Amino acid sequence: MTAPIADHVALPVCVLGLGLIGGSLLRALDRAGRPCFGWNRSPATVVAATAAGHDADTDLTAVLTRARRDHALLVVATPTPTVGAILDQVARHAADCALTDVVSVKQAVADAVAEHGLSARFVGGHPMAGTSQSGWDATDPDLFVGAPWVVCADDDADPTVWTAVADVALAVGARVVPVATEEHDPLVAAISHVPHLTAAVTAVVGAGPGDLALRLAAGSFRDGTRVAATAVDLQRAMIEANGPAVLTMLSEAIDRLTAARDELRDAGTVHTVVEDGHRARTRWDAMRNADPEPITDVTVGAPGWAAELRRQAHLGRVWTG
Amino acid sequence: MTAPIADHVALPVCVLGLGLIGGSLLRALDRAGRPCFGWNRSPATVVAATAAGHDADTDLTAVLTRARRDHALLVVATPTPTVGAILDQVARHAADCALTDVVSVKQAVADAVAEHGLSARFVGGHPMAGTSQSGWDATDPDLFVGAPWVVCADDDADPTVWTAVADVALAVGARVVPVATEEHDPLVAAISHVPHLTAAVTAVVGAGPGDLALRLAAGSFRDGTRVAATAVDLQRAMIEANGPAVLTMLSEAIDRLTAARDELRDAGTVHTVVEDGHRARTRWDAMRNADPEPITDVTVGAPGWAAELRRQAHLGRVWTG
Repeated sequence: MTAPIADHVALPVCVLGLGLIGGSLLRALDRAGRPCFGWNRSPATVVAATAAGHDADTDLTAVLTRARRDHALLVVATPTPTVGAILDQVARHAADCALTDVVSVKQAVADAVAEHGLSARFVGGHPMAGTSQSGWDATDPDLFVGAPWVVCADDDADPTVWTAVADVALAVGARVVPVATEEHDPLVAAISHVPHLTAAVTAVVGAGPGDLALRLAAGSFRDGTRVAATAVDLQRAMIEANGPAVLTMLSEAIDRLTAARDELRDAGTVHTVVEDGHRARTRWDAMRNADPEPITDVTVGAPGWAAELRRQAHLGRVWTG
Repeated sequence: MTAPIADHVALPVCVLGLGLIGGSLLRALDRAGRPCFGWNRSPATVVAATAAGHDADTDLTAVLTRARRDHALLVVATPTPTVGAILDQVARHAADCALTDVVSVKQAVADAVAEHGLSARFVGGHPMAGTSQSGWDATDPDLFVGAPWVVCADDDADPTVWTAVADVALAVGARVVPVATEEHDPLVAAISHVPHLTAAVTAVVGAGPGDLALRLAAGSFRDGTRVAATAVDLQRAMIEANGPAVLTMLSEAIDRLTAARDELRDAGTVHTVVEDGHRARTRWDAMRNADPEPITDVTVGAPGWAAELRRQAHLGRVWTG
């Protein structure tokens, strides 16, 4: 009897890009005792990561060659506009590796992966965590604790890769939510990309009357505009990569604000928008405070496994391994 | 030589309404060692306040009679729709008292005060502090620490009352910002009331695709919609009382979101709105992190004192007593 193939849990994780998400992932994996190493273009980041005891390098070819040799799981964690260039190098040096990403749109990444002939070993991912800060200095090994982490459960996903990606998310404390790639982007437009745009407009309107207005700004302005402080390039990259879905959701936001304006002008009340908003927010509060049920009775790789994961995710359940 | 009139600092403060703002004020004043007592309509609140060691009663006539006898400064801290009924009782039982309020609009309150013949002893106020919670259980004696507190500096304000109101704000740790009554409401529409409406719409859009979207919602949704959880009646009261100013600022928000949508659709970019929002928010961050300069060389009551306070407030200075 030959030795079994090494359990994927023992395989190292290679994180490509050590900004807020990638850097936090490297730190969290190291803390969890998972073998891991990383690449970043910037020497300053690599120096900082290395000084903190992590295994990092600026040489992408060397890192990918090592990843191929060690059968590492590759995690693309660079901003959306650079994904194509990273995939060029992956296709050249580490095409055999299992591959995932942590980019905030999923269809555009899946398309780029397909163009590079890498779809067979790819399962997309998206941890729903972040701050308005960016870069290695903002990394936090607790960033993913309790956070939803989308692991794309498409019908043609490789079960072994899917499980490996889900295990990375579980290792750093996230809640794994199986979602179809095509379903992901409209959801994220609604709960992340439009909130960035409404935050930006709220900030601009608040600053409009001048500094005295900003001096009076308190909690509603502070929280409502927090994400507007996120680096401009990062916001543009994620929103512009999800253009069609953002357009739909943004139009709905405009329609609802316009209806609120008309109701205030014509009837002197804002009760519709305030009541609808209150209901939506308190529903989220209730969901967040409830521990999600685990997905049960699914064997990853069995017939229909991906559809069943998606079905149970819609019931509010999460994958717990 | 007769004894001087008692220093206003020694005068008690009578807080009418013990919700989030009024209750927090009573707690903060008690902690600061300022004589104070309060009224609330609800027996449950009065029982809770009394049990916590505060002086509170449900009998408005008795409380106002005591306030008149003790030359207390009255602080109207009830929701906007009830201000008229409170002023009816103030005019009947304590018309001689110095009078202020903590309501989130200033012109409507000043108009109501004038209708009740109480303008001579009135100086409006507005602490820029709050949470999405309401009621006595949400009160916090630290609520006002470091918060801006508008004290209306109109040309006809009584200097003694103005100083008494400012001293209450200073006693609980707030930063006193002198602003004209007519200037206040558009500023607050921009930095508080429109943010409530954009938060409500952001919550509704996020919840639109269903529970799976809400399950993925993270930081941008959480912070951007926080104030949508504020009690509906309180939000309606403050926004609807400031209708004309809110309409103007809300229309600007709609115009800017529409321009962002058009730019994304026609040019594939959101750079204008994201850059403008980033600039506005980071300007606020810089202002908030700087300790404001004190207003200098103003003797309250000297010719032109109110205009000079307003002028220096526009330079970013605060009144420190």
